[in-house]
Amino acid sequence: MEKLYLDDLTEGAQYTSDTLEVTEADIKRFAREFDPQPFHLDDEAARSTLFGGLAASGWHTAAITMRLMTEGGVPIGGGLVGLGGEISWPKPTRPGDVLHVVSVVTQIRPSKSKPGQGIVTTTSETINQAGDVVQKFVAKLVVYTRAQAAQNAARQV
Amino acid sequence: MEKLYLDDLTEGAQYTSDTLEVTEADIKRFAREFDPQPFHLDDEAARSTLFGGLAASGWHTAAITMRLMTEGGVPIGGGLVGLGGEISWPKPTRPGDVLHVVSVVTQIRPSKSKPGQGIVTTTSETINQAGDVVQKFVAKLVVYTRAQAAQNAARQV
Repeated sequence: MEKLYLDDLTEGAQYTSDTLEVTEADIKRFAREFDPQPFHLDDEAARSTLFGGLAASGWHTAAITMRLMTEGGVPIGGGLVGLGGEISWPKPTRPGDVLHVVSVVTQIRPSKSKPGQGIVTTTSETINQAGDVVQKFVAKLVVYTRAQAAQNAARQV
Repeated sequence: MEKLYLDDLTEGAQYTSDTLEVTEADIKRFAREFDPQPFHLDDEAARSTLFGGLAASGWHTAAITMRLMTEGGVPIGGGLVGLGGEISWPKPTRPGDVLHVVSVVTQIRPSKSKPGQGIVTTTSETINQAGDVVQKFVAKLVVYTRAQAAQNAARQV
């Protein structure tokens, strides 16, 4: 897909990623390394918690979302560089879930202090096979103009 | 450390985690699976980007932060269950960085609709060996009262 720069992006434009299946083994492997709490590691132990059964770490959902966005999110020239944003997990990701991400460009704001770049806000919903939203992430991304990107590239030669 | 419930927590209480070193191999391994962009995979390619050198994915920093918090964050009975929050990455995590997390309980709000539980807001800063903040995360956590937790446990027998 053609890469887009600050001057190419349009508010309201929507991008849909491919899908990715999350297995029980994936959930446990991520949890062992990064979020070793019983409800992410053991289905039996998870049943007696708020989750009612094995659930992926929210950070695993976030990481999978990033993977899907690098392949089919907003195709920003220079890559997806986030300053941060607001994240929420309305429902957990479960073993066997097949996730995809729908991203919408919600705001484009050229920088006043740094000509040649700006901040683009995107809202990305990570959605399972039943249509439930398992994550919402409103991100602030750093994006260059096409001219600035060309200038950066020339400077590196 | 003794586990704390909604009625035990104190606004302003601060918890400091252990440290964890992030290697170049860790950064690349996480990036290959979840965020395969050049600036997270290849030091040479990263030099000509905004990062100026190899940088961990923000989601890797977030995952490491979670790991540190499960071991030395706010010791909440029932575990750290986040509804979401605001995340930002003021600086990237670099190869060799040694991170720790300082978490402060900033707000305790018992639920009006669900007696026995509440929402606790924590602010967690992930800090490198130079004292730079590489991530700030303001989280909303679901926390039970001690009585509710005992009742939940009894129901499961």
